[in-house]
Amino acid sequence: MSRYWSPLVKSLTPYVPGEQPKITNLIKLNTNENPYGPSSKVLEAIRSEASDNLRLYPDPNADTLKQTIADYHSVDKNQVFVGNGSDEVIAIAFQALFKHPNPLLFPDITYSFYPVWSDMYQVDYQTVPVTDNFEIDVQAFKQANGGIIFPNPNAPTGRLLPLDQIKLLLEINTDSVVVVDEAYIDFGGESAIALVNDYPNLLVIHTLSKSRSLAGMRVGFAIGHPDLIEGMERVKNSFNSYPLDRPAQAAAVASFLDEEYFQSCCQKVIASRESLTEALTALGFEVLPSAANFIFAKHPEHDAETLANQLRERSIIVRYFKKPKIDQFLRISIGSTEECEQLATALKDMLG
Amino acid sequence: MSRYWSPLVKSLTPYVPGEQPKITNLIKLNTNENPYGPSSKVLEAIRSEASDNLRLYPDPNADTLKQTIADYHSVDKNQVFVGNGSDEVIAIAFQALFKHPNPLLFPDITYSFYPVWSDMYQVDYQTVPVTDNFEIDVQAFKQANGGIIFPNPNAPTGRLLPLDQIKLLLEINTDSVVVVDEAYIDFGGESAIALVNDYPNLLVIHTLSKSRSLAGMRVGFAIGHPDLIEGMERVKNSFNSYPLDRPAQAAAVASFLDEEYFQSCCQKVIASRESLTEALTALGFEVLPSAANFIFAKHPEHDAETLANQLRERSIIVRYFKKPKIDQFLRISIGSTEECEQLATALKDMLG
Repeated sequence: MSRYWSPLVKSLTPYVPGEQPKITNLIKLNTNENPYGPSSKVLEAIRSEASDNLRLYPDPNADTLKQTIADYHSVDKNQVFVGNGSDEVIAIAFQALFKHPNPLLFPDITYSFYPVWSDMYQVDYQTVPVTDNFEIDVQAFKQANGGIIFPNPNAPTGRLLPLDQIKLLLEINTDSVVVVDEAYIDFGGESAIALVNDYPNLLVIHTLSKSRSLAGMRVGFAIGHPDLIEGMERVKNSFNSYPLDRPAQAAAVASFLDEEYFQSCCQKVIASRESLTEALTALGFEVLPSAANFIFAKHPEHDAETLANQLRERSIIVRYFKKPKIDQFLRISIGSTEECEQLATALKDMLG
Repeated sequence: MSRYWSPLVKSLTPYVPGEQPKITNLIKLNTNENPYGPSSKVLEAIRSEASDNLRLYPDPNADTLKQTIADYHSVDKNQVFVGNGSDEVIAIAFQALFKHPNPLLFPDITYSFYPVWSDMYQVDYQTVPVTDNFEIDVQAFKQANGGIIFPNPNAPTGRLLPLDQIKLLLEINTDSVVVVDEAYIDFGGESAIALVNDYPNLLVIHTLSKSRSLAGMRVGFAIGHPDLIEGMERVKNSFNSYPLDRPAQAAAVASFLDEEYFQSCCQKVIASRESLTEALTALGFEVLPSAANFIFAKHPEHDAETLANQLRERSIIVRYFKKPKIDQFLRISIGSTEECEQLATALKDMLG
């Protein structure tokens, strides 16, 4: 605490990301990273950027990247916004689109950065309970609001809201922006990007950190009506002209040009998720249906925090949230085939 | 304009960075980039990061980079904050340290992003006139304020405020934070980092974009009292956990480890600045004394905007600001020896 801080700073409770341990030889299943590295074409693109040109600023508008994303998703370039990871993109959406007299709505069980951004940008918010099955109940969002945001699939549950439910939400909610945070959509969901031309208040946000194996490069993007994008650009350009460095822009472009590699990684993760779900179910775990690259599981006879600690002793890190309603769950990222097998073996051993 | 925008967005006037033209074969002297590329060790460090590890998040706290900067500048690691370019670092300082009832003060002739950040973060501000010689008058800052910020050397004038004047400012201003934005300090100034242990309200901000030839990588940092740094971290961690990607962190570390290359580039730029100043003076230009990697010059008989346009026709781009007090000046970045010679030749030809 310091008398020099802006008063707001004193009341902030910053977000705490999943641990990034510096020791190696860990089975790291705690931050939903992809077990497979990026495409070799992406690595080649990054190496090509290691040149004298780094003395020059990057393209502040990331035109080539925006056009690549627009082509990939069959939208216009002015419907695309890019940022330094989807967290930056969402933070900008909070500032550009959510600061209204009515409260922002999001599920009570969801990405725990949403309340942090709300406090940071002084956006009033209200949580909407998920059902007993951890599903998002679209009808419960039918109330006065200044915006709606939720991940789909939801985090940390992995549960998918089908596209017809999102359509329904957009039909009943036309006066504020609906942000669908699709960080995990490529692992089995249908993207709401298909709806952006029909709903001027829909913004869909993606990241390259998960399905495109680029957590280390920090690239995210949003797709929506050009007016929403323009609002985002105004905030971005009042904050930081060049949030994406040259290698990040080049890496992201290359990733969209290697569809085959992308699809094969997603398919491998999905297959591992299904095997791991089966293995854990056989051990007595209740595993929520997941469309993400993680599963959310609890064991009726074993305390989740204890299990997480026991796994850590075996050099396996999973994510545990000490929070109401979910404090008996473990969130387990889908690792490689071997990592998933080692996890299942460890749990089998522990449960005796 | 959209009804979905937060009301603040409607009133924003975003910053417009210097043009980044996509055509090549230009002599680009408009955005103060270094004419020399980064150290080969930096390029090697970036290439080494192009690996499977990019599937993993970067270190959110950039510990290795912070320690490297701390060692280089002989401070403790908890006195160092890093960000996605110094623009992001300054934007975070505005939020963390400048939002107080009294207005922020900055010179009337200065970096034109300051009023943009003030509007963006709703920080009330007041400008303090520079002298007729475009010098910062420290005594004029002796007034109630919620913070003070200025570049040193100042932009776009290039004028340096000596360290004893900064000390004087800190002696008369103890109740609010003084941010010294030292983007250009390595080209001939003495850094106020030497004062941070004496003044708990001093924050010094640097960028790797200019003297370290890394505009394309987006890395900046701040050094100050640990309490100021903690306030900055709270804002950063309420916004974006991982603003620096893996290659950017590695490149920045490598840059600080190649002191010889860094010094030689700075010396070459300084030598070119002195030659160019001489050449322009011989052509009748009045050139302000500069301690930066650019000069600010006017010709008593030739309109600056006309000159800028004529240079553009010869594929030479310089920066022109259509603003009161400086609309007869050109801001010319120091290019390579050859580029500076070509500029001088073109001007000689144009002036007849």
